[in-house]
Amino acid sequence: MSNHRPAFSLICVDWGTTNLRAFALDEHGNIAEKRESESGIQNVQQGDFKSILNGLIQDWQTNNSESTLVLMSGMIGSRQGWLEAPYATCPVSPQDLIDGLVSVPDENSTWITPGICVPAETGRPDVMRGEETQVFGALRFLQRDDAVLCLPGTHSKWVAVDQGAITRFSTAMTGEVFHVMREHSILATLMTDNGEHDARAFGEGLKQSAEPGGLLNHLFTVRSKGLFNSLPGNALSSYLSGILIGHEIRELASLTHTESKEIILLGSSILSKRYAQALTLMGLSFVALDNDIATTQGLFSMAQQAGLIK
Amino acid sequence: MSNHRPAFSLICVDWGTTNLRAFALDEHGNIAEKRESESGIQNVQQGDFKSILNGLIQDWQTNNSESTLVLMSGMIGSRQGWLEAPYATCPVSPQDLIDGLVSVPDENSTWITPGICVPAETGRPDVMRGEETQVFGALRFLQRDDAVLCLPGTHSKWVAVDQGAITRFSTAMTGEVFHVMREHSILATLMTDNGEHDARAFGEGLKQSAEPGGLLNHLFTVRSKGLFNSLPGNALSSYLSGILIGHEIRELASLTHTESKEIILLGSSILSKRYAQALTLMGLSFVALDNDIATTQGLFSMAQQAGLIK
Repeated sequence: MSNHRPAFSLICVDWGTTNLRAFALDEHGNIAEKRESESGIQNVQQGDFKSILNGLIQDWQTNNSESTLVLMSGMIGSRQGWLEAPYATCPVSPQDLIDGLVSVPDENSTWITPGICVPAETGRPDVMRGEETQVFGALRFLQRDDAVLCLPGTHSKWVAVDQGAITRFSTAMTGEVFHVMREHSILATLMTDNGEHDARAFGEGLKQSAEPGGLLNHLFTVRSKGLFNSLPGNALSSYLSGILIGHEIRELASLTHTESKEIILLGSSILSKRYAQALTLMGLSFVALDNDIATTQGLFSMAQQAGLIK
Repeated sequence: MSNHRPAFSLICVDWGTTNLRAFALDEHGNIAEKRESESGIQNVQQGDFKSILNGLIQDWQTNNSESTLVLMSGMIGSRQGWLEAPYATCPVSPQDLIDGLVSVPDENSTWITPGICVPAETGRPDVMRGEETQVFGALRFLQRDDAVLCLPGTHSKWVAVDQGAITRFSTAMTGEVFHVMREHSILATLMTDNGEHDARAFGEGLKQSAEPGGLLNHLFTVRSKGLFNSLPGNALSSYLSGILIGHEIRELASLTHTESKEIILLGSSILSKRYAQALTLMGLSFVALDNDIATTQGLFSMAQQAGLIK
């Protein structure tokens, strides 16, 4: 008995700085299989992206008479990645991303999507790679043409979409500031948690973020509250997280959000839960969508629209 | 010929987390000699503070028939220091510091000043050790009873003084956030300076700090501007410094400052120069004073008022 299965329609790869996620999609664009690896582009030795990718997805190809299309987004298209796919400049439509697709030489049917930028002349220069694909995937899935999208992470993105095009966006270094303060600052000496989340302390941090004094001052309250035992050591990192996420949302929602636009929250379940608590506390309504769906919907529709798959 | 010199009136020690500064004062309270060491309290092995101090200042004592008084301020009075001198609670007058002096057991004439705190019940808990002494020294030297003092550093302090007493203060983690972002974040990869200051890029950072988006967003502009080559790699850390100092001043000046109060800038010459540029750009007038003078004046007047020296 031969081991036949239906051919996949598309292999989607979201290849970032620290992580790599691959999805095999069925003919309807639904996720049939998912695999993850910590081989983000900064962990790939001597630029051997090909071996890493083959190691992760090669068996997805073996039952097919011809190679399944592989479409990749994220930092894999940066100067430090496999092949540079130059930034498209805002405003950016889905067609602009398709126009910027690059084909990896000597690879069968392997393409990389461009990132997008806000140019320096605007006075608000910014860049992203990967999130733009998720944004268009979410809009398609939710059938929206106008929205503000929040994509939490190491470098959180807030993206304004008007009539189906990304018009502007801003980045907040929320996750990275959390990490460096948690690991490398004097605050670390008082923190005794093992990564568990304390929702009450997180809420206290959100409230602190609304007080006068600014972020540089609020960060020091982590130390003061620790010294005075007004928060236990194992609650301090959740409190810090609340301060940072509170500042991000307050500043960037007001920058990108308008009354008429709905906020779409796109993230992993852990982060989305924290942001949902924060948005709710601040009286901002939102729709949450898993970023795996957003990624695969974005790449699937791009492949279809580009005529790379049926 | 014997090697006589006049006895010093007081030995002042400002003993912080990472540094130790000692001053020998003449009978008028002027600095006769100064010595520095990197033996901050975190670098002292097995709590042997006595050996470190003797190694630094013993010869200042040898020509005197009786021991010269040693008065110490800073983290040396913390739980991690030589002997804990509990915090005095705001509002704090010079007399409150004198009432909180602790004498080091088994040492001749060696005293430690207390730190001060804003208690948790106020909703703005905060702590300092060492800066309170500089504040009172500066007020005495400049003959002021009301002022706002800015003490830049790893943890910058903004202190409000009313009728000769410290009524409230706030800390900003400016120097520490600069350090962790400079050393441990993705921003570090683009920075190519050797610590030299670029006044133009610093000014650009100050201006950026006034834009919408908040600090977490402004931090990412260091990366965007580096990627787009709108600032050279050796100017990025000055730009980062401008962003952070701009945020600190804007937030904490508005928290502690009132129209009627003068700002007194107390710091090392390098930091004070940067803050002076920033305050001037923001239209805030100020008086600058060297923090060595503030420290020694503060400790000298405390020793006099306590009756420990004539």
